[in-house]
Amino acid sequence: MNIKPVIAVLQGLVARDTEITVQGWVRTRRDSKAGLSFIAVYDGSCFDSLQVIVNNSLANYQDEILCLTTGCSVEITGQIVDSPGSGQKFEMQATKVVVKGWIEDPETYPMAAKRHSVEYLREVAHLRPRANLIGAVTRVRHTLAQAIHRFFHEKGYFWISTPLITASDTEGAGEMFRVSTLDLENLPLAENGKIDFDKDFFGKEAFLTVSGQLNAEAYACALSKVYTFGPTFRAENSNTSRHLAEFWMVEPEVAFADLDDVADLAEEMLKYLFTAVLNERADDLAFFAERVDTTVIARLQDFINKDFAQVDYTDAIKILQESKQSFENPVAWGIDLSSEHERYLAEEHFKAPVVVKNYPKEIKAFYMRLNDDNKTVAAMDVLAPGIGEIIGGAQREERLEVLDTRLTAMGLKKEDYSWYRDLRRYGTVPHAGFGLGFERLIAYVTGMKNVRDLIPFPRTPRNVSF
Amino acid sequence: MNIKPVIAVLQGLVARDTEITVQGWVRTRRDSKAGLSFIAVYDGSCFDSLQVIVNNSLANYQDEILCLTTGCSVEITGQIVDSPGSGQKFEMQATKVVVKGWIEDPETYPMAAKRHSVEYLREVAHLRPRANLIGAVTRVRHTLAQAIHRFFHEKGYFWISTPLITASDTEGAGEMFRVSTLDLENLPLAENGKIDFDKDFFGKEAFLTVSGQLNAEAYACALSKVYTFGPTFRAENSNTSRHLAEFWMVEPEVAFADLDDVADLAEEMLKYLFTAVLNERADDLAFFAERVDTTVIARLQDFINKDFAQVDYTDAIKILQESKQSFENPVAWGIDLSSEHERYLAEEHFKAPVVVKNYPKEIKAFYMRLNDDNKTVAAMDVLAPGIGEIIGGAQREERLEVLDTRLTAMGLKKEDYSWYRDLRRYGTVPHAGFGLGFERLIAYVTGMKNVRDLIPFPRTPRNVSF
Repeated sequence: MNIKPVIAVLQGLVARDTEITVQGWVRTRRDSKAGLSFIAVYDGSCFDSLQVIVNNSLANYQDEILCLTTGCSVEITGQIVDSPGSGQKFEMQATKVVVKGWIEDPETYPMAAKRHSVEYLREVAHLRPRANLIGAVTRVRHTLAQAIHRFFHEKGYFWISTPLITASDTEGAGEMFRVSTLDLENLPLAENGKIDFDKDFFGKEAFLTVSGQLNAEAYACALSKVYTFGPTFRAENSNTSRHLAEFWMVEPEVAFADLDDVADLAEEMLKYLFTAVLNERADDLAFFAERVDTTVIARLQDFINKDFAQVDYTDAIKILQESKQSFENPVAWGIDLSSEHERYLAEEHFKAPVVVKNYPKEIKAFYMRLNDDNKTVAAMDVLAPGIGEIIGGAQREERLEVLDTRLTAMGLKKEDYSWYRDLRRYGTVPHAGFGLGFERLIAYVTGMKNVRDLIPFPRTPRNVSF
Repeated sequence: MNIKPVIAVLQGLVARDTEITVQGWVRTRRDSKAGLSFIAVYDGSCFDSLQVIVNNSLANYQDEILCLTTGCSVEITGQIVDSPGSGQKFEMQATKVVVKGWIEDPETYPMAAKRHSVEYLREVAHLRPRANLIGAVTRVRHTLAQAIHRFFHEKGYFWISTPLITASDTEGAGEMFRVSTLDLENLPLAENGKIDFDKDFFGKEAFLTVSGQLNAEAYACALSKVYTFGPTFRAENSNTSRHLAEFWMVEPEVAFADLDDVADLAEEMLKYLFTAVLNERADDLAFFAERVDTTVIARLQDFINKDFAQVDYTDAIKILQESKQSFENPVAWGIDLSSEHERYLAEEHFKAPVVVKNYPKEIKAFYMRLNDDNKTVAAMDVLAPGIGEIIGGAQREERLEVLDTRLTAMGLKKEDYSWYRDLRRYGTVPHAGFGLGFERLIAYVTGMKNVRDLIPFPRTPRNVSF
């Protein structure tokens, strides 16, 4: 059999005088009075289905073809011809249709060919990739992931897999999942009456990581340019459209780089990724523009064509104060910017992606580099029109004595960070990096509102199905 | 500053009449009587260091240059010249050396420039990427990861991120880590006196996954060709050189494919990956051949040039029985092959990688497709000379009634697999896939014996450091 994916046929890459076979699933079937059936077959290789014309002269036409319903799996052999119809350039004239799998009860098939709500689709997460919407999300997700690896590889970065199970807490304030093999019905107790974690798998308390950054720093301090791209966890009881208990994160870390260097890196990376998805997934983006958000394509093109604005946090506060907007959250130096502030800056004031830099040290993590003003740290957030914060980063504190002062001021123990401090004791270098939430990136690209629809099997409070 | 990575200099990509800057760390320093110092500088971009010649005419020569020790971070500006020495083609004549970071106490620096044992390096996992050995491992790991993504992308596969936190147990027999936010000091009890998991984060018991396969099958049954590449967990108390509690796995899953198709895919993939690493990491492989295992390069070339042998399990048993070898583990139809059997087949009998197919159903998982003999299932293992099993795969049971019979026979409950059964109720298709342990792949490529040295921060029983 000369098997071809649907995408090869639709792109005109299949010769029109040879017999080929496509394998996939029935999207729809309609029958003409002239004794022909039109079957739309998809195989996931691209957004569109292939139109297949089946003549009633086929032996199994009455018994099988006329019984095909949405979701049946088929293997169809035939020739590709120019389509006289207006919907497609090519179609297939079938010479043989083999039905591989039927739908148990078409009346109750959960993925009937109609528009389903995203809420309903989450309840059938094992079947939802069969929907046009989730198929398109999956291809966009793949394209962005590939582009991320390609971007960093081409720039000489090494991919590092940082550990998921950890005994340390990067941010010093995370809500973390415990990882354990202790028998909860029969917990071992130490002499002091507390749980005896010495009996646990790792011999001490262990958790799921909230960030690979600290570990990535160790590798940046040896290989110069590294990035992580892996899962990350938050045990926050947040039932919002922007939170997942398990999500994927991209975290580059660059030795000998300062805040401006990684702000430039973030701009270059986002533009590279958006260019890739515009070039490679035009079919799926057209669908999102039609069905989800009419602005998605223009928004990406706009993003690519504009230079990022840059503004100091202190100046951003002034802009907000002078804006005469009535914000829900009052504006004053020292506050963390909230979503309304971020969107005003990106959408109303700068009308472009904007990098806000140098935040008050009180609202940022211990590892961010203290500026000479002694009041701010070299942190940055990238704010995008239409979504707000999409990237958060910082130059890291490379000076041991300043780091120690910060740790103490924040009530953290030096002993808990001894290996991290070693990176400053031995050949320390200025370095910087940032984090990009992968599902939020896909939200920006597709216009989809809820991150639960942008990862195959979402994990959220009270939901660990499938 | 015109900053260049060391690899660009050593590959001759830097013009020899312009001033450039390299940033990195001192590997070694030696001083000549003529008032010159030779500093070997590495930045991780490739295996070799750049030799930098520093003349005592530099202002900081006495106070700083002569104090440089292994591990100090430096930023050096100068011109690239042809090297008169035999060790390298190019070297740098420094015009400026800026010391960025000193070594706190060179006498006790854990990464002094000498050969360290792998056991010692594990104790300083945050500093060990600075060693030649672990730097080389990191670059090989990166190259293989990139090649995996590229291979599948070029063949039309979509990368799927399957969930790490799960309520189901793929193999039906895994030792799994519990994931929970319950307060162990104050566990909620239900009315029956048992732990009330309804109060836990997910509202039920949750664990870390042992495989993404079942979830990947759901996506293959919609998008045809998918693969996972992500972390996987085993709570086995195994202190061996081949086991990690947290490791990375590659799992392609292909709709409309049978066992032979994925055996071919495995062969094509491994040859693609080994070709990539031979082409892209010649420097690091030369190091492994010199220091770790003299056969690594020849072994990879041999692997690429040989066709895989294929043998049925039943025939493999006959070969072993007729071999007149005295195996520790007796050979009889029905046994699981042990390492000595696998290595005899690959190394002595076939003298090539060999795919063993169609194992007794009793020793394989419930989801593997029952063969017509009713005794064996369509499972395969790929055995490689020098390491034994490197890939395990199977055609999946796509027939609902056969799957149900197998579930029942193995004491598993149909209800626990309801979503997995749905894939067979609705448009089922023949499909197949396999799993490749990423760290074992790196072991094969590098000749390194212990997987703890092939992942940045290994997790094993009683070890969750860093």
